[in-house]
Amino acid sequence: MAYRYKLKIAYDGTDYAGWQIQPHKKTIQGALEHTLSDMLAGAPLRLEASGRTDAGVHARAQVAHVDFPEKIGDLRYFCRGVNALLDEDIRVQSIQPVEASFHARFSAKGKEYRYFIYNGMVVPPPLRHIRLQEGRRLDVHRMNAAAVLLQGKHDFAPFAANRGYGDEDTVRTVHQIKVVRRGAEVMISATGEGFLYKMVRSIAGFLMDVGMGRIEPEEAKAIFAKGERTARVQTALAKGLFLWRVMY
Amino acid sequence: MAYRYKLKIAYDGTDYAGWQIQPHKKTIQGALEHTLSDMLAGAPLRLEASGRTDAGVHARAQVAHVDFPEKIGDLRYFCRGVNALLDEDIRVQSIQPVEASFHARFSAKGKEYRYFIYNGMVVPPPLRHIRLQEGRRLDVHRMNAAAVLLQGKHDFAPFAANRGYGDEDTVRTVHQIKVVRRGAEVMISATGEGFLYKMVRSIAGFLMDVGMGRIEPEEAKAIFAKGERTARVQTALAKGLFLWRVMY
Repeated sequence: MAYRYKLKIAYDGTDYAGWQIQPHKKTIQGALEHTLSDMLAGAPLRLEASGRTDAGVHARAQVAHVDFPEKIGDLRYFCRGVNALLDEDIRVQSIQPVEASFHARFSAKGKEYRYFIYNGMVVPPPLRHIRLQEGRRLDVHRMNAAAVLLQGKHDFAPFAANRGYGDEDTVRTVHQIKVVRRGAEVMISATGEGFLYKMVRSIAGFLMDVGMGRIEPEEAKAIFAKGERTARVQTALAKGLFLWRVMY
Repeated sequence: MAYRYKLKIAYDGTDYAGWQIQPHKKTIQGALEHTLSDMLAGAPLRLEASGRTDAGVHARAQVAHVDFPEKIGDLRYFCRGVNALLDEDIRVQSIQPVEASFHARFSAKGKEYRYFIYNGMVVPPPLRHIRLQEGRRLDVHRMNAAAVLLQGKHDFAPFAANRGYGDEDTVRTVHQIKVVRRGAEVMISATGEGFLYKMVRSIAGFLMDVGMGRIEPEEAKAIFAKGERTARVQTALAKGLFLWRVMY
């Protein structure tokens, strides 16, 4: 008999080779599985996340599920123990029991990602790992004009990194992309049913080029029409990206 | 002939043994002097700050002055060069020419410090180095009742760390101390003409104990009357403290 739990997890991905466990590399999944197993006296277990995040990408609220061989009496104290064992760059915000039918990836109805840019020359030091620095002034009005054209159901292959196997379905539905400025901070939010590999960073890179005047907003249409990745779409660095929330 | 410049500096003090230069230790002053000297082809120079900050304390806007052997033609590019050489946890925000009579310490009219507490069990990972974590609920109303009693001109010896020499004048004027809550974040701001060694951290420690109900706000009066440091006043950890601004 197994007991399924849902975990909400925040992390600063700076020092990690991404979510997915890999031999000889420091990964979020590896650190969490190791710690949860230690709390359960060495029981083998496997975490399943809503999706992977790349090396250097952060999460405000990643969601994962795990099956434990026993029922946890007091989840608050269990959770505190887990956090006491983990490095402070990973925090388990909550652990709650769920039905065996709950699946962190397959049950997810959508996700929101946020990409943060410090639009100035001097990033405040405490933000240095979680902001992309860009000195050229970004025109948020132009960026939003392009963002609107990216919304909806499209084949997002031109805004994704090719993983080497061409048979993947690259059609996705993005409900909303918007760009907001607050002082020197520019934030791109993308909400959708699902995202391809490096898709949010490619959208962020494209929108930044639009914001700097290198690309016209309307070029989004031509890029979708071409249907494949071009040098016009740059992938923005990982450090500005947060998996913000997963909807079920 | 020397040319005096005023620098505004931000830093994440986590990895530093404080502002003041010390042999074989990583210090803010040491890193800055080394970098400025490199930009000036090895010219010897000395930075004078508005005051030292302790190991682990941060600054949003520390101010220092320095005398250069030559006039800098374009300070913007000089400043960018300095930041390119520095680690990202120290940023020079601006460099501007000042009169030879300007002195970062003696010309300062006042300072504001801010102490940040995350009043919950789970600190968001990107804030882990710049927030004190406190799980017990802090009563901000009680803390402000005590803060008011600390304002004004007092002998602050009970709220300072003894440096070993007892002849120092420990009377200081604090214009304002206030405590503000925004969600789980509690911020203590202290503005005054000057502060003693570890004074803001001692005030923060005292106010937190008041906020948790361990000490009554009125006890501030008895502590001032006693006139010396007691175990009732604890020094809060360095990581929550920022030198926020220096007034001239």
